[in-house]
Amino acid sequence: MDSAVAEPIEILRRTPQLLRALLKGLPDTWTDTPDTPDGWRPRDVVGHLITGELTDWLARTRRILDDGTSKAFDRFDRHAMLDRDTGVPLDVLVEQFAELRARNLVEFESLVSDAELDRRGMHPSLGEVTLDNLLNTWAVHDLDHLGQIFAGLAGSHDSDVGPWTKYLGILLRRSDPAAVPG
Amino acid sequence: MDSAVAEPIEILRRTPQLLRALLKGLPDTWTDTPDTPDGWRPRDVVGHLITGELTDWLARTRRILDDGTSKAFDRFDRHAMLDRDTGVPLDVLVEQFAELRARNLVEFESLVSDAELDRRGMHPSLGEVTLDNLLNTWAVHDLDHLGQIFAGLAGSHDSDVGPWTKYLGILLRRSDPAAVPG
Repeated sequence: MDSAVAEPIEILRRTPQLLRALLKGLPDTWTDTPDTPDGWRPRDVVGHLITGELTDWLARTRRILDDGTSKAFDRFDRHAMLDRDTGVPLDVLVEQFAELRARNLVEFESLVSDAELDRRGMHPSLGEVTLDNLLNTWAVHDLDHLGQIFAGLAGSHDSDVGPWTKYLGILLRRSDPAAVPG
Repeated sequence: MDSAVAEPIEILRRTPQLLRALLKGLPDTWTDTPDTPDGWRPRDVVGHLITGELTDWLARTRRILDDGTSKAFDRFDRHAMLDRDTGVPLDVLVEQFAELRARNLVEFESLVSDAELDRRGMHPSLGEVTLDNLLNTWAVHDLDHLGQIFAGLAGSHDSDVGPWTKYLGILLRRSDPAAVPG
């Protein structure tokens, strides 16, 4: 991997294809359960990822490049998808995300080369961060929320596995985050 | 979904494509970290899934159909991959898994229809289970271990996200399973 910009993008460009392979055409019997009792269904997670593409990652990149640490990032609305995406089918949300992600990666790569990764911005709660932190967080945030989708899918079949529940951490953690399988 | 057999298979047939989309060609900088300090790297997880295809899910299906509850399942070797897969590239492991899974799904569907799902077998520790429990566990076990792969990938970039670590549950849980982000 020659470029520090390209390395996290290896993950970022895979997420749309992962969501398609996992969710498109999957029956509602798998996709209508949140990861935890007060958590998010797969459609809410995809909506949250869409919000990130619309209002967060590229806006914060531009803020760093334009204003450095002199103007903090705008705050992120973690619940924007709940009203916005009502009634939109999950398969459509997956394609909306894929389009936004593809466009944003083109724009990011046009704005940022390795030389800019040390540039600094101001997070409203966390304080100073680098553009490199932002790029890597964008990728790890994908991984975090993909894991949340798997937990919702698994939770939909909690009762179907019978006695095996006690060996399946992904089910046990829905009610007890510190549960140890076995 | 007309068939109770087909419904979990909707997940089982997607896993090889997910592993390809996620792991093939991904740089070692992403794939060489276990999910927890004493956990498994992505290659170990794929190896564990291979072991399941080689020795577990179909063997237990046949045991239920042939012997019912009169002969308990053989125990599963959770560490068989550590010696067996030494030196095999991750991309090759992904394709080995994909071939085994495709073959096993054809065989499973040839052996089992909805009418057989109530048949019972004997787990050596858990006691009586149904063939329906086994089939659903096969699918949820995939989801559990896919989540483990995401945790290893995220962990490889723990230090790259800077102050954002505290918002990323997938990183916090590597050292404290009950950690709450934020």
